[in-house]
Amino acid sequence: MPTLASRSASLTPFFTPNGVAIIGASRDASKLSYGIVRNLVDPEHRYPGPIYPVNPKAGEILGLKCYPDISAVPDPVELAILILPAPMVPGAVDACGRRGIKAAVIISGGFREIGPVGAAREQEIVAIAGHYGMRLMGPNGIGVIDTHTPLNTTFVKGMPPTGHIAFLSQSGALCGGVIDWTIGRGIGFSRFLSVGNEADVNETDLLPFLAADETSRVITLYLEDVKGGPAFVDALRQAASRKPVLAIKSGRTAGGQAATASHTGALAGVHAAFRAACKQTGVIEVESIQALFNGALALAYQPLPAGNRIAILTNAGGPAALAADALEEAGLSLARTSPDTQAVLRSFLIADAQVAGPVDLLGGANEHDYRRALQAVLTDPAVDGVLAILVPQALVNAVAVVEAIGAVAAAQPASARPVLACLMGEASLDEAFKAAHAAQIPAYTFPEDAVAAFGMLWQRARRLQIADCRLQIADRNTQHAARSTQHAARSTQHAARTTPSALLAAYDIATPPEALATHPDEAATFARQIGFPVVLKLISPDILHKTDVGGVILNVQDEAAVRAGFETLVGRAAATHPGTAVTGVQVQKMIRGGQEVIVGVKRDATFGPLIMFGLGGIYVETLRDVSFRLAPLTPDDVAEMIDEVRSAKLLTGVRGAPPADRPALIEAIVRIGQLAAEHPEIVELDVNPLLVLPKGQGAVAVDVRIILG
Amino acid sequence: MPTLASRSASLTPFFTPNGVAIIGASRDASKLSYGIVRNLVDPEHRYPGPIYPVNPKAGEILGLKCYPDISAVPDPVELAILILPAPMVPGAVDACGRRGIKAAVIISGGFREIGPVGAAREQEIVAIAGHYGMRLMGPNGIGVIDTHTPLNTTFVKGMPPTGHIAFLSQSGALCGGVIDWTIGRGIGFSRFLSVGNEADVNETDLLPFLAADETSRVITLYLEDVKGGPAFVDALRQAASRKPVLAIKSGRTAGGQAATASHTGALAGVHAAFRAACKQTGVIEVESIQALFNGALALAYQPLPAGNRIAILTNAGGPAALAADALEEAGLSLARTSPDTQAVLRSFLIADAQVAGPVDLLGGANEHDYRRALQAVLTDPAVDGVLAILVPQALVNAVAVVEAIGAVAAAQPASARPVLACLMGEASLDEAFKAAHAAQIPAYTFPEDAVAAFGMLWQRARRLQIADCRLQIADRNTQHAARSTQHAARSTQHAARTTPSALLAAYDIATPPEALATHPDEAATFARQIGFPVVLKLISPDILHKTDVGGVILNVQDEAAVRAGFETLVGRAAATHPGTAVTGVQVQKMIRGGQEVIVGVKRDATFGPLIMFGLGGIYVETLRDVSFRLAPLTPDDVAEMIDEVRSAKLLTGVRGAPPADRPALIEAIVRIGQLAAEHPEIVELDVNPLLVLPKGQGAVAVDVRIILG
Repeated sequence: MPTLASRSASLTPFFTPNGVAIIGASRDASKLSYGIVRNLVDPEHRYPGPIYPVNPKAGEILGLKCYPDISAVPDPVELAILILPAPMVPGAVDACGRRGIKAAVIISGGFREIGPVGAAREQEIVAIAGHYGMRLMGPNGIGVIDTHTPLNTTFVKGMPPTGHIAFLSQSGALCGGVIDWTIGRGIGFSRFLSVGNEADVNETDLLPFLAADETSRVITLYLEDVKGGPAFVDALRQAASRKPVLAIKSGRTAGGQAATASHTGALAGVHAAFRAACKQTGVIEVESIQALFNGALALAYQPLPAGNRIAILTNAGGPAALAADALEEAGLSLARTSPDTQAVLRSFLIADAQVAGPVDLLGGANEHDYRRALQAVLTDPAVDGVLAILVPQALVNAVAVVEAIGAVAAAQPASARPVLACLMGEASLDEAFKAAHAAQIPAYTFPEDAVAAFGMLWQRARRLQIADCRLQIADRNTQHAARSTQHAARSTQHAARTTPSALLAAYDIATPPEALATHPDEAATFARQIGFPVVLKLISPDILHKTDVGGVILNVQDEAAVRAGFETLVGRAAATHPGTAVTGVQVQKMIRGGQEVIVGVKRDATFGPLIMFGLGGIYVETLRDVSFRLAPLTPDDVAEMIDEVRSAKLLTGVRGAPPADRPALIEAIVRIGQLAAEHPEIVELDVNPLLVLPKGQGAVAVDVRIILG
Repeated sequence: MPTLASRSASLTPFFTPNGVAIIGASRDASKLSYGIVRNLVDPEHRYPGPIYPVNPKAGEILGLKCYPDISAVPDPVELAILILPAPMVPGAVDACGRRGIKAAVIISGGFREIGPVGAAREQEIVAIAGHYGMRLMGPNGIGVIDTHTPLNTTFVKGMPPTGHIAFLSQSGALCGGVIDWTIGRGIGFSRFLSVGNEADVNETDLLPFLAADETSRVITLYLEDVKGGPAFVDALRQAASRKPVLAIKSGRTAGGQAATASHTGALAGVHAAFRAACKQTGVIEVESIQALFNGALALAYQPLPAGNRIAILTNAGGPAALAADALEEAGLSLARTSPDTQAVLRSFLIADAQVAGPVDLLGGANEHDYRRALQAVLTDPAVDGVLAILVPQALVNAVAVVEAIGAVAAAQPASARPVLACLMGEASLDEAFKAAHAAQIPAYTFPEDAVAAFGMLWQRARRLQIADCRLQIADRNTQHAARSTQHAARSTQHAARTTPSALLAAYDIATPPEALATHPDEAATFARQIGFPVVLKLISPDILHKTDVGGVILNVQDEAAVRAGFETLVGRAAATHPGTAVTGVQVQKMIRGGQEVIVGVKRDATFGPLIMFGLGGIYVETLRDVSFRLAPLTPDDVAEMIDEVRSAKLLTGVRGAPPADRPALIEAIVRIGQLAAEHPEIVELDVNPLLVLPKGQGAVAVDVRIILG
C-alpha cells in the first residue's frame, strides 16, 4: 500500500495534468462525449495543455486531431477521460496503463450500481489500474472541474465562475444542478469533484489534497455513503484544522436511506455516527444544499468574527427585525452600538434614523450614508461583524450602495470584521448582486439566510478558539494516553474470557464490591464480607433483562434476608424460565445516593464504536434525551456530549441535590470509549446505571451488559 | 361603534374605489409622490377609474389634469392618497371628510413613530376621520395594491404579477423588498396591504375582508405588533376557517423585540401568546419570509393532499435522497409506488431506472418520460402527492418537461393530488420557472424548500380534518359551555374576596379537604376530622414561597405530630421572617400517588390569559418542557397542549406506573382556562402541583398561588 502522502501526490494529474486524452470522444453534438470535448476547448476556459480525442472512426473533433487509440497519442499525456460502453472499459483501462497514463476519470456507468456483473467489472478495472500504479476517479461520476487550471472533464453545460470554494459530491447528477445554480448566482468555485462509485479514489484520499490546495479556501461535501470510517474521520479532522469544511449527508432518515441505497447500491451508515464525526472534527454539518453554499460563501470571502455581536445596518425596519430574531435563534446577538458610535451616526444621519439596536438609515439612505455608517460601526469595539441590509428604493442606486459597502469592508486593517449583505429583492437587484460578488461581499436575498451564514462564521471561529484551548491541555492528554496504554496491557484478555466487571476494572472504571454465590449460605458470607446493605442479582445465561423477571432485590439488610432473597430469585427464575440454568446469585455492595446515568456503546458498521450518554430511566427510555460521539474520546468531546443532553442539568445539583462528580463522569466515559476502541469484539455495551456520586466521590458502574460479535 | 360587518364593508373603497385623488402629487420625478401617480397610470396596470392629482402649483402631471385642492375634485371620487408633510395632514384629512371621501391612505410619516408630538397628531386625524365616518389606512405605510382592480397606491417601482396570494404587512419597507422579489420570481399576488401605524384600520379589520375576497386564495401576514388580541384571534380563526392563513411575526426574541420597539414605537407582545393563537386558530406560523411565500404558493395553486405519502419523480438520485430526508423531517413520508404502478413504469422506462422509492427516470429522461411517469404515479392509490424534480441536462428540454408536468397535473379528475416541482438550477432554468408559474405548478430551486411547502399543504389538510372531527363533538362542547355558565354564576365573588381553594371549587376543580388552624389543638382536631395522614402548610401574607423556608411538612401521621408540626412551622416563620404575621397553619389531606403536573396562567398584555402546562419539578424548572395556549380552551386545545410536552409521555404509564387520568387532566385545564378568562383581575396563577391520579380517579389541585393585578 502506498502511504497517504504518496496517495495524495498521485492525485495531481486529475487537476493539473500535462495532456488530456478523451477516450470515446464523439463528433455527434447530441452525445455526452462531445460535450466533454466542447468543455475542454471552450474559448472562455480552454484547458491550456494538449487535448487528444481518441476515436478510431473520426478524423477530427472541434478542430482537434483524433487518434485511433490511446497508444497512438503522443507525449505529453497524463490524464485520460473514459466515456465508453461499460464492457469496453477494462480493455481501455489496460491500454491507458500500458501507455503510461497516470490518472483516469471514468464517466461510464454500468458498474457496481447495476448489480453483481457490474461489481465484478469494477473490481477488474481497479486491479488493472493497480497493476500500473494508475489512479481512477469514478466510474459513474462526471469527473473533475478545476476553474484555476482551467480543466473541465464533465459534459455539463456551463462552468462555474472561478473562485475559492471546493465541492466534492458523491452524486454526479446533483453537480449539474449545483453548477447551473452557481452560474446563475455568480458563486465562484475552485474545484468540483464528482467521485462516482469511488472504485479507487474516494473522499478520504481527496480531503488532504483539497486541504493543501491554496485556491480552495473552503471545502464543501455532499455525501451519501462514507467508506473507511476511521480514516475518513482522520481526514476530516486534518482538513478542518486547516480550513472550514461543510458537509451535508443524505440518508439522514429511514426514507432518505432507502433513496440512497437504491441510488448508490450501498447502505448508508447510521446518521448518529456521521453527526458525531462532524462534531468531533469541527466539520460544519448542514441540512440543505442552500445552507451548504450560503455558509461556504461567507467562509471563503470574509474573516471570522472575534465574538458573536453582530450589528445590523439597514434602510428598512421590518427586515432588520427579522434579522434580529434570527440572530438570537442562531446563537448570535444583536450588537448595541457604543455611545461614541451613536454620536458619530447622529452627526450625519437624518433625525428620524435609529442609531441604537439595528442602525436604521431609513428609506432615503444612499451610498454615502451606508459608507459613513459602516465605517463608524466597523470601528466600534462593541461590534464583531456587520450585516448590511438593503431593500430596493426607487431613488437609491443599489449598485453604488453595494460598492460602498465593499470598499469600506476591504479597507479594514488587519483585525478585519466580517461584513455580509442582505439584498432583499430580485427584479431590480441583479447588478447589485454581481457587484457584491465582485467586491467579495457575500450577498443573500433574505435576512434569515444572511444570519445563518453569520452563524457558520461564528461556529468556525468558536471551533478555532476551542482548538487553541485544546493545545494548552495537550500535556494532560498525553498523560492520559500513557495511562491508556497501561490499561490496554492489563486488559489483553478477550472480553469474552473475562467478567464484565473485571473488564471495567482493567480500565480503572469503578465497580461495587461483588461476588458470585451458588448457595444461600455462600451468599450470606459474601454479604457479611462486603458489608450491608447489599443488592442480589440473578445470573443466568438465559435471562438478559434481569429486572423484567424480578431478578434484582435491592437494599438487603442482613444475612437472613440474603438467604431468603437467594431462594426467592432462584424460584423466580424457575417460574418464568422453566428448566433454565441458573449460574448463581451475584451479591453486590449497594451504593446509595448519586445520579443514575447510562453510557452505551454501539459499534457502527462504518465509523466503529459510537458512544451514547444519557440520564437514567425515563430520560433515556421515554424522553430519548441522549448524545453520541465516536470513540476514542477526548475529555473535551465528553464534556460537550454531556452538555448536549438537556437533562444533564440535573448533574449540577438542582432542587437541593448535591452537584455530581463531573470530572469522574468524564473520566469514566473516556475510559469506556477506550475499552470499546480496544475491544473490537464488543458490538454493544451498556453501563446502566453508572452512578455519579456527589462531587469528589467518583462514579461507579453498577450494572454492565455486553454483547459480543 | 359600527359592527364588525359594517366596518368591513367600509373598507371596499380601499380596493375598488370609484375615483382616486392623490393629495400632494408632484411633477418632480425624483419625488415619491410622483411615483404614486406613475404607478396609477402605468399602461400595463392602469387604474381604470378617474385619477385626480391634487397640487395647487401644478397644471398637470403625467397627462392628468391637476386640481388645486380636494374640494375642487369632481365626482366620482372615493379614495384619497395623502403624501404631505405631517403637519399638513390633519387639515387635509378634514378637507377630505368635507368633500365626502370614504377612505384615505396616509403615506406620510411623522406620527406615533416619532414620539409624543406625532402621537397627538395621529389621535387628531383619527378623531377627524371618525367625525366624517371616513376610514384611514396608515399613516406611515405605503398603502394598497390590488392587482385585479388594478390599483397601486404605492410609490414602489414595479407591480407584482396578478395572482391569488394576499399579503398584509406591518412594515412598509419590507413590502418594497417583497414586491421586487415576487416580480423577479414571477409569483402572483391578489392584494398587497401596508398598514403602517394602524391608526384606524388594522389587521383585525382587514382579515374578514381578505377572507371574503374571492381573488385571494391564501392570506399571508407579516406582523410586528398585534393590537386587540382577542378580537384579532377571532378574526384569525374566522379567516383560517375559510382559507389558509400564513403568518410570520418579528419580535420573536428579545433582540427582535428591541428592533421592533424602536421601529414601530410599540412593544411587541410575548411570542408564546402569538404562537398559541396560531396553533388554536389553525394559522400556519413560519419563521422566514421565504417560507411564507414558498408555502403560500403551494396553498394558492395546488389542492390539499388526503394523506402524507409523497412520491418523488426525479432525473437525479442525489436531490431525491435529500428530498426523502426532508420529507421525514417534515412529518411526511416517502410514498412507495404500488406493484401495479411499478409494472407500468417498467413498461416504458429504461432498464436502469428506479421504480420503487423515489422514481428515478435517470438523466436522459425527457418530457414524454415525465408525462407518462407522472400519469402512472398520480393514479396510484398509495400516493397522496408528487414532487417532480428536474436537474438540467444538456440534452433535455426543461420547459417541455415542466409543461408536461403541468398538463398532467391539470388533467386530474375532481379528487386531484398536489404536484410541486423542484427545478434545481438557475442559469438555464429561467424559462422553465416561468413555464411552471404559467401552469400553476409551484416551483422551487432546492428540494428542501419544495418539501417544506408540501409540509404546509399537509399541515393545512390535517387542520381541516381535525376541524371536521371538531364539528362532531360540538354537542359535547355545548354541554360544556352550559356547565361553564353555572360555574360563572357560582363564582361571582371577586378572586380577591375568596380563598384560592374556594375559587377552584367554584369551577369544579377538585382540591383536597383542608382547614386553616390558628392553634395547635385546632390543627389536631381538623386533622382528625380530615383523616390521616395530613400535610401542614404555613400561611403568611409575607411568605409566598413556602417551601423555601421549610414551610411545608408532609405525611403527618397523628395528632401529636400535628401539634408538634404546628409549633415547628411557626418557629420557622419567626426564624426566617422575624416579626412576620402568621395567619395560621393549613391542615390538608395528604393525597398519595399520581403524577405531579403544573398548570399556570399568565395574563398577556395583548392576548389575555395564557395557559401553561408542564410536568412537575425538574421538567418545568430545569428542562423547561412546557406548552402554552390561550384561554378560553377547548378540550381539543388542551389535548394538543398536553401532547406537545415531551415529558407528558410519563402520564401514559411508564416503568410500571399506572396510566394517569387524562380526561380528568383535560377537564381541569379547561376549567382553569375558564376561571382565568372570567377573572380578569388574576394576572398570574399557579396550580402546582396538580396531582393527576390513576385512570378514573381524577385530578386534584394540591396547591394554588394567585397574584392579583
